[in-house]
Amino acid sequence: MLNEKLTLNQELDVYPSRIKAKLEIIPRKDPVVYSEWTPESAVTEEQSDFYEQNGYLFLEQFFTEEEITEFQEEARRLQISARTNRTDVIVREPNSDEVRSVFAIHRINAVFQKLSRHPRLMAIVEYILGGQTYIHQSRINYKPGFTGKEFYWHSDFETWHVEDGMPRMRALSCSIALEDNFHYNGPLMVVPGSHKQFVACVGTTPENHFKHSLRKQQYGVPDDGSLTELVKQGGIDTPVGKAGSVVLFDCNIMHGSNSNITPLTRSNVFIVYNSVHNKVQEPFSGQRPRPEFIATRKGL
Amino acid sequence: MLNEKLTLNQELDVYPSRIKAKLEIIPRKDPVVYSEWTPESAVTEEQSDFYEQNGYLFLEQFFTEEEITEFQEEARRLQISARTNRTDVIVREPNSDEVRSVFAIHRINAVFQKLSRHPRLMAIVEYILGGQTYIHQSRINYKPGFTGKEFYWHSDFETWHVEDGMPRMRALSCSIALEDNFHYNGPLMVVPGSHKQFVACVGTTPENHFKHSLRKQQYGVPDDGSLTELVKQGGIDTPVGKAGSVVLFDCNIMHGSNSNITPLTRSNVFIVYNSVHNKVQEPFSGQRPRPEFIATRKGL
Repeated sequence: MLNEKLTLNQELDVYPSRIKAKLEIIPRKDPVVYSEWTPESAVTEEQSDFYEQNGYLFLEQFFTEEEITEFQEEARRLQISARTNRTDVIVREPNSDEVRSVFAIHRINAVFQKLSRHPRLMAIVEYILGGQTYIHQSRINYKPGFTGKEFYWHSDFETWHVEDGMPRMRALSCSIALEDNFHYNGPLMVVPGSHKQFVACVGTTPENHFKHSLRKQQYGVPDDGSLTELVKQGGIDTPVGKAGSVVLFDCNIMHGSNSNITPLTRSNVFIVYNSVHNKVQEPFSGQRPRPEFIATRKGL
Repeated sequence: MLNEKLTLNQELDVYPSRIKAKLEIIPRKDPVVYSEWTPESAVTEEQSDFYEQNGYLFLEQFFTEEEITEFQEEARRLQISARTNRTDVIVREPNSDEVRSVFAIHRINAVFQKLSRHPRLMAIVEYILGGQTYIHQSRINYKPGFTGKEFYWHSDFETWHVEDGMPRMRALSCSIALEDNFHYNGPLMVVPGSHKQFVACVGTTPENHFKHSLRKQQYGVPDDGSLTELVKQGGIDTPVGKAGSVVLFDCNIMHGSNSNITPLTRSNVFIVYNSVHNKVQEPFSGQRPRPEFIATRKGL
């Protein structure tokens, strides 16, 4: 039955997930760093090696205080207007109306459009992904104090592949801290080295899954056994620092975050860069693509 | 109306809470350390001062590996038997049947009874509380991996005072780590210095509140404004270390913990020591006392 429904895409699927009833961990079939390092590269050789081995890079104080103040003020303006705004690009907290994320910020806002094209940042992104990129998704996450809920463990690539049709692992996320991050206010946790393995998940994806998954993840969730194994191998890192620090992380690294009961909010800007050689196709789930504000298709 | 219902206890209540509609922060009216420090004291002068100022003390590697192995094995045995045991002393996770806590372990189990009377530990407890103590409550918290939920901010004393009738602040909790604790697996968070202020909470307590509050706290919860102020003054500490480390903390320190999505469980033994000069009376709420396994009354 399932075979009859296979699209051309699924036949060529090198990272099948949510298809079988059985869990599987398969090795990554793609490079991590797509450029040859030279002394002219945008990162040091140590940084390049660290990213290759661990799947992420932490850049402390990447932005100046002046730049960060501008981003903070703009993010705050967006949050206030989002409270009374009922458009698609706004996602709220489960069980409350508080704004959790605003999407497509590089399109709807001039300040964040400029940020998304920051030359020093772009040089690093293009070094890692080996040339020209485009933005697959962007958003601000307003992780509120007191009631900030966890994001469960996931590989972004698993979702982008199954639900958006991203063929290969040639994308990365850039997380810019708009506030000081501490180890106790629900920071990003990554499993170093987990980007070199692909955890195929069980179950099929319901239609319009995105409407719920952005609030609470239920499909595309790795099992306890796989997570235990990955953490046993790589441990857990929590790259935290002052506002203006940046974490770049591979599309396939296993990551998540705990809840945040502290009074300290933890707003971050997220921008996902994808290689122009890796543009999205039909979703590998065989289902309708997710909306434009979650996964760009226009103008590809 | 409320006045007519006041018991004798409530008239003498120096820490009124859940009585008024208004929030209030009042200064502590009791000492923190009840003994005069001398070179013969069970702690150093620095440790004594640290506890007085911050409201807690972290003792790394307090127990030997051998002792901890025994505690771990016994805790595991208790958890396994608790899974199929439907007695009162077992509290489960919200939304699952997994065992969250087993109470009264110093009574139902010989290993933990011995632990609760550990001479080196007792010497410190008696130094801080100024003489003889008894156990108000004891439990193992099995904070499971993957789905461990948060404990929201609270002062234990607020609950013990209102619901158990503990008159003054002359008690402390002892938390013994049965596993290595990390900053990312939902460790205890404390607000240093918060033990010197009492946050009176809003609202009255429903009857049999304990049945729900041990799973999910809803009453006796401090408001956002008070928490923000306390954290602004004292910050947040997360005393973490290897299995066998001990945290002693004052009954009135504001504390809580975030969720734990990591695979790493975080079992702890909790023992609450109260001064014999501070035995519980009628609950200040005017309601029925909580059960014996949560707050000892027998033999007082």
